[in-house]
Amino acid sequence: MSTSAYHKLGERCRDIALYNSTSALLGWDQETCLPGKGVAYRAEQCAFMKGRAHHLFCAPEVGGWISECEQVEGGEDPVRLANVRDWRWSYDRATKLPGELVERSERVRAHAMSAWAKAREENNFTEFQPHLESIIDINRQKAECYGYRDNPYDALLEEYERGASTAGIAKLFGELKPQLCEIGAAAARRSETVSSELLSGHYPREAQSGFNEKVARAFGFDFDAGRIDTAVHPFCSGLAPGDTRLTTRYDEKDFCSSLYGVLHETGHGLYEQGLPAEHHGTPAGNSVSLGIHESQSRLWENHVGRQPAFWQHWFPVASQAFQPLVARQPDEVIAFTTKSRPSLIRVEADEATYDLHIILRFEIERELISGDLAVADLPEAWNARFEEFFGIKVPSDTEGCLQDIHWSMGALGYFPTYTIGNLAAAQLFASANAQIPGLANELSAGNYESLLGWLRSNIHERGGELLPADLIRAATGEDLSPGYHLQHLRDRYLSTA
Amino acid sequence: MSTSAYHKLGERCRDIALYNSTSALLGWDQETCLPGKGVAYRAEQCAFMKGRAHHLFCAPEVGGWISECEQVEGGEDPVRLANVRDWRWSYDRATKLPGELVERSERVRAHAMSAWAKAREENNFTEFQPHLESIIDINRQKAECYGYRDNPYDALLEEYERGASTAGIAKLFGELKPQLCEIGAAAARRSETVSSELLSGHYPREAQSGFNEKVARAFGFDFDAGRIDTAVHPFCSGLAPGDTRLTTRYDEKDFCSSLYGVLHETGHGLYEQGLPAEHHGTPAGNSVSLGIHESQSRLWENHVGRQPAFWQHWFPVASQAFQPLVARQPDEVIAFTTKSRPSLIRVEADEATYDLHIILRFEIERELISGDLAVADLPEAWNARFEEFFGIKVPSDTEGCLQDIHWSMGALGYFPTYTIGNLAAAQLFASANAQIPGLANELSAGNYESLLGWLRSNIHERGGELLPADLIRAATGEDLSPGYHLQHLRDRYLSTA
Repeated sequence: MSTSAYHKLGERCRDIALYNSTSALLGWDQETCLPGKGVAYRAEQCAFMKGRAHHLFCAPEVGGWISECEQVEGGEDPVRLANVRDWRWSYDRATKLPGELVERSERVRAHAMSAWAKAREENNFTEFQPHLESIIDINRQKAECYGYRDNPYDALLEEYERGASTAGIAKLFGELKPQLCEIGAAAARRSETVSSELLSGHYPREAQSGFNEKVARAFGFDFDAGRIDTAVHPFCSGLAPGDTRLTTRYDEKDFCSSLYGVLHETGHGLYEQGLPAEHHGTPAGNSVSLGIHESQSRLWENHVGRQPAFWQHWFPVASQAFQPLVARQPDEVIAFTTKSRPSLIRVEADEATYDLHIILRFEIERELISGDLAVADLPEAWNARFEEFFGIKVPSDTEGCLQDIHWSMGALGYFPTYTIGNLAAAQLFASANAQIPGLANELSAGNYESLLGWLRSNIHERGGELLPADLIRAATGEDLSPGYHLQHLRDRYLSTA
Repeated sequence: MSTSAYHKLGERCRDIALYNSTSALLGWDQETCLPGKGVAYRAEQCAFMKGRAHHLFCAPEVGGWISECEQVEGGEDPVRLANVRDWRWSYDRATKLPGELVERSERVRAHAMSAWAKAREENNFTEFQPHLESIIDINRQKAECYGYRDNPYDALLEEYERGASTAGIAKLFGELKPQLCEIGAAAARRSETVSSELLSGHYPREAQSGFNEKVARAFGFDFDAGRIDTAVHPFCSGLAPGDTRLTTRYDEKDFCSSLYGVLHETGHGLYEQGLPAEHHGTPAGNSVSLGIHESQSRLWENHVGRQPAFWQHWFPVASQAFQPLVARQPDEVIAFTTKSRPSLIRVEADEATYDLHIILRFEIERELISGDLAVADLPEAWNARFEEFFGIKVPSDTEGCLQDIHWSMGALGYFPTYTIGNLAAAQLFASANAQIPGLANELSAGNYESLLGWLRSNIHERGGELLPADLIRAATGEDLSPGYHLQHLRDRYLSTA
């Protein structure tokens, strides 16, 4: 009976995955290829495909099949246990929201996104304010529907990071914040001697894409199962088994911008390419959380790509590809790519200051949801806190509380996953270093097989089998903690190498 | 009651169009972007989307709604009349085939296509023979299910060209054949003096794509609602309203190959961009037939793009783009692009010989379906007839009866649409010339607006309102006939200009 229910759930997931993977292609194509006049119809295609998938998953029979699976004892297969656990969680969550709220949420979101784009362009917060008020209100209602232990924000966090709690994040961030402030200040002082013109010159786009691909291939990205294209907003999309696509954008004055973008997306892409394809479409075959996904991108971008060993190996290749590097030394590139200074925009922030941007957002989100901060007071609160964190005045809301798209999309609780990713990257990289003899030498020689192999077996191939916190514990032997990340930043920015 | 049924059909068509347009993107992406390892899952996505669309259309309630619509009298709206007429036709056809036959057909087709590719590569007809036998057999069974008046081949033809009949095609082709043989022989004699090395040189890909786009834009192709990409097999895909995509391939030794490919696909693309978007998804909003579609591509490729006026206008632009043309004269380019000689391969054939390739296939297809020709005797029959038509011996089946993919896909009755397209192109262009004062001067000046406007109102904007033969009659005042095409070929190849 229950084998049959489990089988039916598998079949249903197969159909849902066909919709979802097709939606992902519609989305990828929209960012890379779609002509302007095709946008309106594309929105209908996306809504239709997502609607069909949602309808298939929320059907009453699905709830019945999950219950049947739960009633069977002695199922020890970890894949099956994970699938049933996650189906239950997702099904309850999806069916807890009244249809009216889902529809209202989608409507509000669609208007909020265009209002946000306009408000940001015109530096006019009041344009966005009523939309953000609706979004906060809807998120509070959603949290009440989902339910939570301590804090409505818990229910929102879990949308992006299963098992995360407001208290847990607050504790991690509380430990991080004072030390990050100290590291950031010291890193900025040390970086003053590194000219931002150090590597200036012309870096042709073709040369950049050639070099980027060489590095991505060396990291292990399989170009027979993926590709790199150009898009305004860089992203990685694991469209389907055997089809993982990265995007980047090029600045011909600065090859680092595209290179580190590609290394970051390659980290995401390696995770997607390493997921267990035999479980595709079921929770066990999915990436486990946004935080863990981000740990993979940060690990390859920062722990591999910004370490001196990286440039010791790649500098000769880069200086063949890029004429302006011929007159430079590897040490100069290393100094340039680890330069730090406080800055206004999160997506342009360096490693030493990035997490402060996240902590600021986390604090503000919590207060917006709890009602301690009124939306009308957001710009003032943002600016005051920004000056407290970074010591710089925010010149405009466009460069302040209007800079990110997330809130306009209705996503509250998303930002913390970026810092969870940073912490996890450092902790995983430290474990890999401890467990793989001679890893440092391999990385200096441009050999990434052992590192990728370790990530494959400890993270990628485990798919959604464990909850994120358990996955970190299984891979590193410890709970997620800020120590490794802080040590990494100290080594990189404060040591006197 | 029936307004409601008509409305329900419209809604159903909207959903079906969402599936079909998404399938089209899956197909486009497969030809242009998809990494090799993504092919297997892509096949599942395509099958799923097509299956969903088929299921929605063949549902019993659809038949009921169509009947309700038919029972209402006095509906004079031509769009509604056309929709109900075509829904009935498509529904009956789709539901006349037993499920078992549809499944068997798909299975046979999948195997036949890979067997054909292997047989063609290895010049081994016997590898393909049993598959073709099954395909002929299935096509005969389908014809019996569909029903026909005189000839089972009628039922197959109609799959691609509504209203076409074996007798009608045989009559047209019977008139064409002797005159084509005469024109082809004379054209070849005249072309002997034109060296195939005349324009030899290096034509960089970027320069080609730039020039191609300039011409396509001048013809009226809207790049805000479309794009041109690279693919192994050139095609045009009208993916969705506001999203029409062409593909081409480049030969850096010969700019004409890509240019005329793009002009051809631009003709298809202009048709797609000109369809009445308000009827998208219903028969009234669709292109009317393969033959009419082909008439648009041939018209722009041959009647516009290969006429002397084209090069009088574009030669200066081309010689700026392409270094090897600097030393040449417009007349030389004109002579080169209208060179003719009998050749083995249909897709490489010139205008003067192309239709003979089609007539040969039409004759052979009819005999295969009627049983007058056994599949085992196909190579011999092909080769004998080819020598009779073209005066050249076929050196291998790869260059003979195995050259085209169509039969392996199960498509019998498709080939005649190419020549219908040629005839219609000539007849439409003659009408446009007669109806638009000063058209020749406009074309010489590179001004294509009047011509496109005429095609828009006489063909594109009418969508599927009329059956193909009625559409030609409405646009030109006459039934489709071979006279205009023959006159065009005589003017081009036999006149002593």
